Amino acid sequence: MKRLGIGLVGSGFMGRSHAHAFRAAPGVFELPLMPVFEMLADVNAEVAAKNAAALGFARSTGDWKALVADPAVDLVDITTPNTLHLPIALAAIEAGKPVYCEKPLAPNALDAKRMVDAAERKGIKTAVGFNYLKNPMVALAREIVASGEIGEVVSFRGIHAEDYMTDPKAPWTWRLDKAGGHGVVADLGSHIISIARAIVGPIESLVGQIETVTKERPLPGSAETRKVEVDDEARALVRFASGATGSLEASWVKAGRKMTLAFEITGSKGTVEVDHERFNELRLYTVGAARGREGFKTILAGPDHQFYKEFCPAPGHQLGFNDIKTIEVMALLKSLAGGPKFMPDFREAWEIQRVVDAIVVSANEKRWVEVTEI
Amino acid sequence: MKRLGIGLVGSGFMGRSHAHAFRAAPGVFELPLMPVFEMLADVNAEVAAKNAAALGFARSTGDWKALVADPAVDLVDITTPNTLHLPIALAAIEAGKPVYCEKPLAPNALDAKRMVDAAERKGIKTAVGFNYLKNPMVALAREIVASGEIGEVVSFRGIHAEDYMTDPKAPWTWRLDKAGGHGVVADLGSHIISIARAIVGPIESLVGQIETVTKERPLPGSAETRKVEVDDEARALVRFASGATGSLEASWVKAGRKMTLAFEITGSKGTVEVDHERFNELRLYTVGAARGREGFKTILAGPDHQFYKEFCPAPGHQLGFNDIKTIEVMALLKSLAGGPKFMPDFREAWEIQRVVDAIVVSANEKRWVEVTEI
Amino acid sequence: MKRLGIGLVGSGFMGRSHAHAFRAAPGVFELPLMPVFEMLADVNAEVAAKNAAALGFARSTGDWKALVADPAVDLVDITTPNTLHLPIALAAIEAGKPVYCEKPLAPNALDAKRMVDAAERKGIKTAVGFNYLKNPMVALAREIVASGEIGEVVSFRGIHAEDYMTDPKAPWTWRLDKAGGHGVVADLGSHIISIARAIVGPIESLVGQIETVTKERPLPGSAETRKVEVDDEARALVRFASGATGSLEASWVKAGRKMTLAFEITGSKGTVEVDHERFNELRLYTVGAARGREGFKTILAGPDHQFYKEFCPAPGHQLGFNDIKTIEVMALLKSLAGGPKFMPDFREAWEIQRVVDAIVVSANEKRWVEVTEI
Amino acid sequence: MKRLGIGLVGSGFMGRSHAHAFRAAPGVFELPLMPVFEMLADVNAEVAAKNAAALGFARSTGDWKALVADPAVDLVDITTPNTLHLPIALAAIEAGKPVYCEKPLAPNALDAKRMVDAAERKGIKTAVGFNYLKNPMVALAREIVASGEIGEVVSFRGIHAEDYMTDPKAPWTWRLDKAGGHGVVADLGSHIISIARAIVGPIESLVGQIETVTKERPLPGSAETRKVEVDDEARALVRFASGATGSLEASWVKAGRKMTLAFEITGSKGTVEVDHERFNELRLYTVGAARGREGFKTILAGPDHQFYKEFCPAPGHQLGFNDIKTIEVMALLKSLAGGPKFMPDFREAWEIQRVVDAIVVSANEKRWVEVTEI
Repeated sequence: MKRLGIGLVGSGFMGRSHAHAFRAAPGVFELPLMPVFEMLADVNAEVAAKNAAALGFARSTGDWKALVADPAVDLVDITTPNTLHLPIALAAIEAGKPVYCEKPLAPNALDAKRMVDAAERKGIKTAVGFNYLKNPMVALAREIVASGEIGEVVSFRGIHAEDYMTDPKAPWTWRLDKAGGHGVVADLGSHIISIARAIVGPIESLVGQIETVTKERPLPGSAETRKVEVDDEARALVRFASGATGSLEASWVKAGRKMTLAFEITGSKGTVEVDHERFNELRLYTVGAARGREGFKTILAGPDHQFYKEFCPAPGHQLGFNDIKTIEVMALLKSLAGGPKFMPDFREAWEIQRVVDAIVVSANEKRWVEVTEI
Repeated sequence: MKRLGIGLVGSGFMGRSHAHAFRAAPGVFELPLMPVFEMLADVNAEVAAKNAAALGFARSTGDWKALVADPAVDLVDITTPNTLHLPIALAAIEAGKPVYCEKPLAPNALDAKRMVDAAERKGIKTAVGFNYLKNPMVALAREIVASGEIGEVVSFRGIHAEDYMTDPKAPWTWRLDKAGGHGVVADLGSHIISIARAIVGPIESLVGQIETVTKERPLPGSAETRKVEVDDEARALVRFASGATGSLEASWVKAGRKMTLAFEITGSKGTVEVDHERFNELRLYTVGAARGREGFKTILAGPDHQFYKEFCPAPGHQLGFNDIKTIEVMALLKSLAGGPKFMPDFREAWEIQRVVDAIVVSANEKRWVEVTEI
Repeated sequence: MKRLGIGLVGSGFMGRSHAHAFRAAPGVFELPLMPVFEMLADVNAEVAAKNAAALGFARSTGDWKALVADPAVDLVDITTPNTLHLPIALAAIEAGKPVYCEKPLAPNALDAKRMVDAAERKGIKTAVGFNYLKNPMVALAREIVASGEIGEVVSFRGIHAEDYMTDPKAPWTWRLDKAGGHGVVADLGSHIISIARAIVGPIESLVGQIETVTKERPLPGSAETRKVEVDDEARALVRFASGATGSLEASWVKAGRKMTLAFEITGSKGTVEVDHERFNELRLYTVGAARGREGFKTILAGPDHQFYKEFCPAPGHQLGFNDIKTIEVMALLKSLAGGPKFMPDFREAWEIQRVVDAIVVSANEKRWVEVTEI
Repeated sequence: MKRLGIGLVGSGFMGRSHAHAFRAAPGVFELPLMPVFEMLADVNAEVAAKNAAALGFARSTGDWKALVADPAVDLVDITTPNTLHLPIALAAIEAGKPVYCEKPLAPNALDAKRMVDAAERKGIKTAVGFNYLKNPMVALAREIVASGEIGEVVSFRGIHAEDYMTDPKAPWTWRLDKAGGHGVVADLGSHIISIARAIVGPIESLVGQIETVTKERPLPGSAETRKVEVDDEARALVRFASGATGSLEASWVKAGRKMTLAFEITGSKGTVEVDHERFNELRLYTVGAARGREGFKTILAGPDHQFYKEFCPAPGHQLGFNDIKTIEVMALLKSLAGGPKFMPDFREAWEIQRVVDAIVVSANEKRWVEVTEI
């Protein structure tokens, strides 16, 4: 089997998760390419060396440019903070190498568009890690909607809420730096936007609201505080190109919510819903049941659903967060070997970013915004 | 015990429900007044006579003016379609009689304000049937927020969704007549607004979206259709006077939802949520639990919660829809006998109606609206 | 309409609940008889007079024999502690009056059989208050099983667990007096047995286990304790006459359970389950769904289910504990007026009691017992 | 790092799952040994070669004896049908190699005891794959019970129900061969017994019931049927050595249940419950909450719980079935390198098997059985 040299940039939570997925995928799926852990880049040579050893990479570097240039690196995998996505991706594209980048693609739609243009000009394959789209239950929701099982889509109600910034004493992090883009609307909001677009289609216009709940936060290990300039909460009312309407919400100060990436899609003949706090379940209601037998059906993920049986032949045994990432990596490897195009690619990620930016513009200008304005 | 002659106008679902509550209340609560089923008015003498017999009213009439004027009628109880609320209420007020009126108070805020002014000028006691506010679990949510158990309120996420108009063949009804006011934003939306205001306080500004999903519907028992001019779905992003933000939604075309009057209130230290499809439960999360022991607690309604023990001494045995109405009637009877003021009164119902109207104005003009504009 | 003079013996929780139901029923259902609150008997004249006033009874007495003998009393309604059921019922039967008695019918099967024999000899109508059988969702489960929707019944798994005796300091009560019969196996166990029999049919044999968890309890308002001689927990493995097998459990020391009267019935083609902590819901699984669409359906009580629509025309609005009792009273009044026989009658209550006794005998003798031995 | 040559016998569902876990573990945990995929044995050389390639084993064989004898094989990992566990394990022990064996250990307690004796005589380390014990939420339940958070254990209610044999047309398999031991009581029952013992301790005595629901099944790809001699359902009432009591159930014909390995443990001060259809959740009730604030808390698995954070730093993101197996393999590798003893070992697996056998003996002889009789 042909080998694919992985060059991973960044080894935080997402770097580890990518490494785990590349390691697990060949044992789960029949793959056309064998990933090889070629090189890891991180903030400096020391950190890179330490994490390369832990994650099983053959070599390491404190300079991502060296990684991009390395002839054994066939795929540039970017899991750095958002501000670094653009220069690394542009360099990889320039070097003619495919790019696998964590979400959100860029701090803003303009940067994202630069990345799209570069990749498309050079004909480079790209992939962005909106992993929840690979959850078999999200894929099932998409299939149910696409097949017309719930009729024509009338409305979408989506949210991604967590609570890791609820504590006003939670320290300042790079996620709060305006230079890196927006706040929760980008970090979590982009996930629910990616699902809305994947299942219901393009969002045409919207009106948004953003809010910074905690106005300043302590600097890590310091008595000083720093002003927070990005949003802790965001909401939007949206109109899809299809005519469907709906709402989006993102929050990282929703006390008690750990992974509420949840959506409800209602059609003329039914409703489907998924909540990632129980992401191995999908609830489905369709009209037309016998009288007195109407109700939401709770469907447990099982081998009849896309990609589940490769992990387990028995239903109800559950996939985990890392398994979803393994599915993503499998889809990436297949696309690199000439299989179906990986989605979302940079272009789709740019479209998602336009919606993020549109929410912020709308909120700041207190008006409805056409997404094409962005 | 002093008797209170009830004059009920209307004997549909709500009329029956009021009668049931007046009948049940004296067996459940110690009351200062004994309701007596004095007179029923309906669209004509025949219907009125039939329903009076069924519901146990002593007399009946096809003319609500006769009921208002009747000396044995001490309380005018209005459960007619919305357009009739104003003339009947004004007549009752003019006659110096307290009024108990179903929600929404009027087709629009202007009419509602006329009713408020008339009642306040004459010093007449008024009550509006936003019954879910009397659900012990809603009262508990209010108590939890008011006591600071979840800190300062950060956000409110509320919805009232049902599906009784999902079928595009569901016939045209008076609820769809624009003369009677708005559509679902008034019929169901007013409930979620009433809860938002009761717990989080006044809504200052909002931006709304309304949608008519089914553009025309068959006339009952006819091959002809009639254009639908009111909303099937409505949403709003809101800002409360307190600085909290949030969203509201109402829909009567949400396939599968039978009684999803649901809300989530997040504060700086916790979250509380209630869904009326399981209205004997409240879910509460508060920060500060021991590590590894954090989680939402599901609290079942029981005798430690307001007014439950009068129905049942044992927890978890559940109250029903009609019991909530019985609590409402108890509160009304106590207020009429000099107890605490019944809420919501006409003034509060007008405030709720202003929010309803503001959503419609905002949606039509595609702009943020200050509720005080209405 | 013909009146029916109610003579109520006992005015505790259950007495109040009966009174509430008799008051509410005529407003909910079209009834062939109008219940009239004729007389209340209680432990002494003073208590009886006070409670008669509160519940709306015209007269009162400290001597139940006077009530039974009173010519205006047409129905003797017994809600006393269990030990009194037999003498009162026998007197009523002797007087030719129908009897409505709370469950369990008697402290043991022998006494219950005496009551059956007396009633049948005199041709007296009897009714026993196993109210949960009147829950529309229990009726729906029965209909689903009877119609073959889940095939032939394979197994039954039932429990009735509450936690009101969890605290070892919870004081000694008459329920703990061995003279009154058994402990939780009778108090709560009889409910789950009544459901098992109603849906799956007669229980042929069983092996039981009983346990007294708290061996002595404080006497109310005293420093002294009294030995507990009845069971706090009971379980049984059972075989039904149909060949189905299953298990039963009862506990009043199940911390956290408030009203877990729950059962699961599995057939060759599906499973149905109900839990009374959410008693307006039924969960149904049937084989044969499309691949990838299998799952339990959550059915909310609504107007398509037996007796719901008389309370509310809209689904999902929920019935409460007292509404279930109102249905029971309606069924009783119809049977007294010549309608379908009320079930469970004394004979069925005796059959339930035999199962209770069989569990105790089996536990004490540590062997399988045929229910017909009792 | 020292390498550990894995010799895997069997490559069905469990063989694949073991391989996946050995592959994933080094990327998740810091390990003292590096597993190397040395050799795979299967029913014949051809199947073995094919699956070795798919799973990444260096060599393969159709003869497990060659695998056991191979000097590069340091660990013998057995995932064959149950009847083969004994000869392979005895050979491995004889060869002085540690053994990792799938559950149940043997077709009966006698065979299991032979394996225990052999291993203990030679001082060989052993491990049995009762993987659900490694679920962080099961570990949390154990910690909660051990720490006294729910007081002294009063009762245990456990079940393992699935539905893969519901269809009477589901073909005959080796699991139904009496020579391989018992039916569901061994296959699934052993899991719930393993949990009961791990958390509540030894089971002293029990009374059991077993049932063959489908008496004969078609031979695979044949018109003929074969008699089923093992149980499809099993139940027991149990008494623990601690004095606690409870019930156990196992079924593979429970329509609709996909992975209902569920248990409830009630103590004098609370209750804890876990259901593996939602195995990233634990529900906990403890007495002593403020009045009106009592309720079950739903705790989502997160980084504060054992071994979760190695997979994901954020709570609520969920582990999957294969992650649990990865935890098991980590514990095994650590124990082989001199860390804490792996549990359950052969001795514990024998104790579990004794309970399985006791249920069958009790059911056949219709009497209570002391587990020590077995």
